[in-house]
Amino acid sequence: MTTPAFHGIVPPILTPLTEDGAVDIASLERLTGHLVEAGVHGLFVLGSTGEVAYLTDEQRGQVLRTVVRVVAGRVPVMAGTIDLTQARVIEQARAAVTAGVDAVVATAPVYAINDLAEVEAHFRAVAAAVEVPLFAYDIPVRVRTKLPVELLVRLGAEGVLAGVKDSSGDDVGFRRLVAANAAAGSPLALFTGHEVVVDGMLLLGADGVVPGLGNVDAAGYVRLWELARAGQWAQARAEQDRLAALFEIVFQAAGRSGDAAGVGSFKVAAHAQGLIDSPVMAAPVRALDGEAAERIAGIVREAGLVRA
Amino acid sequence: MTTPAFHGIVPPILTPLTEDGAVDIASLERLTGHLVEAGVHGLFVLGSTGEVAYLTDEQRGQVLRTVVRVVAGRVPVMAGTIDLTQARVIEQARAAVTAGVDAVVATAPVYAINDLAEVEAHFRAVAAAVEVPLFAYDIPVRVRTKLPVELLVRLGAEGVLAGVKDSSGDDVGFRRLVAANAAAGSPLALFTGHEVVVDGMLLLGADGVVPGLGNVDAAGYVRLWELARAGQWAQARAEQDRLAALFEIVFQAAGRSGDAAGVGSFKVAAHAQGLIDSPVMAAPVRALDGEAAERIAGIVREAGLVRA
Amino acid sequence: MTTPAFHGIVPPILTPLTEDGAVDIASLERLTGHLVEAGVHGLFVLGSTGEVAYLTDEQRGQVLRTVVRVVAGRVPVMAGTIDLTQARVIEQARAAVTAGVDAVVATAPVYAINDLAEVEAHFRAVAAAVEVPLFAYDIPVRVRTKLPVELLVRLGAEGVLAGVKDSSGDDVGFRRLVAANAAAGSPLALFTGHEVVVDGMLLLGADGVVPGLGNVDAAGYVRLWELARAGQWAQARAEQDRLAALFEIVFQAAGRSGDAAGVGSFKVAAHAQGLIDSPVMAAPVRALDGEAAERIAGIVREAGLVRA
Amino acid sequence: MTTPAFHGIVPPILTPLTEDGAVDIASLERLTGHLVEAGVHGLFVLGSTGEVAYLTDEQRGQVLRTVVRVVAGRVPVMAGTIDLTQARVIEQARAAVTAGVDAVVATAPVYAINDLAEVEAHFRAVAAAVEVPLFAYDIPVRVRTKLPVELLVRLGAEGVLAGVKDSSGDDVGFRRLVAANAAAGSPLALFTGHEVVVDGMLLLGADGVVPGLGNVDAAGYVRLWELARAGQWAQARAEQDRLAALFEIVFQAAGRSGDAAGVGSFKVAAHAQGLIDSPVMAAPVRALDGEAAERIAGIVREAGLVRA
Repeated sequence: MTTPAFHGIVPPILTPLTEDGAVDIASLERLTGHLVEAGVHGLFVLGSTGEVAYLTDEQRGQVLRTVVRVVAGRVPVMAGTIDLTQARVIEQARAAVTAGVDAVVATAPVYAINDLAEVEAHFRAVAAAVEVPLFAYDIPVRVRTKLPVELLVRLGAEGVLAGVKDSSGDDVGFRRLVAANAAAGSPLALFTGHEVVVDGMLLLGADGVVPGLGNVDAAGYVRLWELARAGQWAQARAEQDRLAALFEIVFQAAGRSGDAAGVGSFKVAAHAQGLIDSPVMAAPVRALDGEAAERIAGIVREAGLVRA
Repeated sequence: MTTPAFHGIVPPILTPLTEDGAVDIASLERLTGHLVEAGVHGLFVLGSTGEVAYLTDEQRGQVLRTVVRVVAGRVPVMAGTIDLTQARVIEQARAAVTAGVDAVVATAPVYAINDLAEVEAHFRAVAAAVEVPLFAYDIPVRVRTKLPVELLVRLGAEGVLAGVKDSSGDDVGFRRLVAANAAAGSPLALFTGHEVVVDGMLLLGADGVVPGLGNVDAAGYVRLWELARAGQWAQARAEQDRLAALFEIVFQAAGRSGDAAGVGSFKVAAHAQGLIDSPVMAAPVRALDGEAAERIAGIVREAGLVRA
Repeated sequence: MTTPAFHGIVPPILTPLTEDGAVDIASLERLTGHLVEAGVHGLFVLGSTGEVAYLTDEQRGQVLRTVVRVVAGRVPVMAGTIDLTQARVIEQARAAVTAGVDAVVATAPVYAINDLAEVEAHFRAVAAAVEVPLFAYDIPVRVRTKLPVELLVRLGAEGVLAGVKDSSGDDVGFRRLVAANAAAGSPLALFTGHEVVVDGMLLLGADGVVPGLGNVDAAGYVRLWELARAGQWAQARAEQDRLAALFEIVFQAAGRSGDAAGVGSFKVAAHAQGLIDSPVMAAPVRALDGEAAERIAGIVREAGLVRA
Repeated sequence: MTTPAFHGIVPPILTPLTEDGAVDIASLERLTGHLVEAGVHGLFVLGSTGEVAYLTDEQRGQVLRTVVRVVAGRVPVMAGTIDLTQARVIEQARAAVTAGVDAVVATAPVYAINDLAEVEAHFRAVAAAVEVPLFAYDIPVRVRTKLPVELLVRLGAEGVLAGVKDSSGDDVGFRRLVAANAAAGSPLALFTGHEVVVDGMLLLGADGVVPGLGNVDAAGYVRLWELARAGQWAQARAEQDRLAALFEIVFQAAGRSGDAAGVGSFKVAAHAQGLIDSPVMAAPVRALDGEAAERIAGIVREAGLVRA
């Protein structure tokens, strides 16, 4: 078995913002450099963790160009192309390719009410519109559609899809996807977005991981990856347990929205580490603050992730 | 009680397309003219029925400018501003205002996972960004958020919202909204999108209706509106029964997606009536054809809506 | 058009309980008598409002026998047969028939994961097991299955179903059901459970209403029914508006569960009126109390429903 | 770390039925004996896989007594107590204890619309009503409620709950549950119901597994358990891969309901192996037959699970 071009730890990089809501280019440069130096195997730009839904096209372009420039070919850069449907997603994908990314990542249509035949046509059209590999982003909690195993493997076998980023929460489905992909000759690179069960997902055959928490402890995920590659599963589990404890930062802001509590906690943590200048979030989301932010910073400090 | 500026029958106008997917300007001009001449009280452009999710920004601009030009001030034009979240929706709203519409209609955020405080901030930001009145578009089946009565009336009383387009399917909630709005001095113009229970909705106090089927029988909805205004409820029910029978066109394409079967049936019907040149739909949706299209055309013909 | 045997205002009668959780027979006798004397056209025993899910089989038998005895044939008694699936529902139905009810009301299976063919077989089996008419209870919020129009009308035409109690919240579906039933010769008696849009539902052709709020103001619903029968729709709407304002009692216990806030408010109101001795609810639900209960009692008093 | 009393492979045993729908006592005896002899560490009777929702109380009693008698204390027997709410579940639990089971397993309330405080009170009441340990059965797809980590661990620490059977599909939540339970001194025995990711779940710390597929290949799951206990994770994964391939039997009856395709495939497979006399299912579910049944039998045969 050969390692696919896209594999390993590929954090969905945060989009640092300034107090007035602009992209904080300097912080983004710093965070990008830090992640690459920590040994990640790629970067996923403009994902849900990157607050893609909140950014204008102009801001998206700034983010893409900054990350591509700083990465400078050291690892592959994948870009989310989140928009409502086919024609608009194609525009996003072309802009990302122009900015220099190595792959694009598209969800099923949003807002539209489509069936699977239409979802399939949507992916075919996006793939046909760009030269770089296309990954399917399976995230039903945001787009309402769960991408079926059969559809994904068929599109992989035909060369339409190069891989899948699975954020569906359906690990039974992911196991079936791994098995069906292997049976088809492994056309797809299969990434999980479940950052607290990475040990189990690697054990069952995931090719890579897109951990939001990788913004906070990239080195930890790289270690977890290496342990799994070496078949040292007990140690991998111990590393995952450590990371799962760190993941408790996302549960500190009870009563806040999913985006505020999740992405917000990563931003507070990265800010506490000095990786970004401000935990500010894109409007209309308010950054976490007060006791929740203090608890998050405390967890990060306790984990030894803040330099004295 | 005075009639609000926005009231009555306001069809969500179809976006006619050419065989190669471009906006069919000539058909759009013809359909716009037909609807205004049928006596509608306004037009809702770039709604779900207008396939807004499938159109690029350039196409949206063409649609807006065409409808505004043909309407020429005879009735108000409202425009959907469908995009993912605040900053992007504001860009859509500003473009619509530049094109000359009289009001904008925004949903809760899409794709993002927000709480109600963030949804409220989102509407406040959109309202602050444009000079024209803002309507809230309550459509949980597409955006996952149900807008609460209390939030809507409060934003109405503060002048943030001018009205609501209710496509939530929650008629109990709509009755409560009507009552709470009346108790607050009727700051909101309240539109229902439920085209087959318009008689009941007008009886309980709706200010207007946004019927997709109004593309097919605008005159029928105008009659229904006039009967209700005159308190002739038995006749109103008879007219609604007739329209409800016509609405069966949306159930003829069993097994097709919601957008294909719903919007698709309106396009087939409007095409059968000669109102638009083609029933083609925006990619990746295929237009209805074959037996389903024949049954739809048959229902429209039987209803006497196709000139010999 | 003849009036079906089952029609009009059929409140889902509360199950009064004593402080130790037993069925309060004396209160149930009093409430039953009160409702019949208020002119209701039937009673629905052991519905969701009757806390059927919380009662043991022994308690259910007590409730059935008490109501049947007090009603003494003055109006039809319909009984919910809520249990998990076919064999268990049949046992409930037979027990209800033995207790003397005039019709039974069954939901789609609960807990089980069935398709529509299985749901249809379930209704056929229940109908075949009892001599009295069977109504389908369409309540997807509790059982997850929405009963399709086509299935209901077909089972009506074949004599399997005598009617439908619609608590689905889908008024578009209800309009289609009314039309399809009329086209089939009206085999089904169609009841709505939406107590705040009764005017509209009667306008569009409902045969009856099952209003939980009818426990609190039965006379009001009987008036609304009579006005609608007389075609006095403006007055019907005014009566409905009054009842809708009274319905605000169910929104007074913010933060409590659906059953606690809904059924609980009816119990507090009926207790304030002296119709039942205690607002106690079946375990594990705590009765409403404190400020929420005071607000509810205040609304009922203000409505003139509490004798001095 | 000591092994809890309840641990290991605990299949949710099928309920074999005769052609006329009665419990097939002889087949149930045979299947029970087979599973115990295959080395399972316990049996879960009257679970969803045991078609508990479809059985009358009398049938449930037959099943419980038969399994308890055949097991004869060799392994613990756990019993599902599936019913609508507290009072009814307590009746089921008491009947199970009377029949001699070692633990009872209860879900959150069904049909009722409760909040978490009411769900907690429900579990407390069930635990207080019986002498044997109580497990919480977390199965939101059937009961709509997801049991939160904090609630479960708190009830474990207080001695209300002895364990959890997790069929929620939320493996991130399960990882958090394992960690929180460990931090609280491991009061809960934690079982997963996800039969195709058992390797990963054991790696992260599950105490046991409730695999429906264990009816078909109990020995395979026992091997998987032993490999995991020995830290032989690569071999564990290989065994799990084999079992996951076998699990494809549940996907052979496309278009059938969840219960028909899932439980039905286990029954067809167990019948093909001679473990039960008939694949008949409880009404209204029809057993799988025709090509789907043939494909299932073929998969089982190919897996070497049918003796020549």
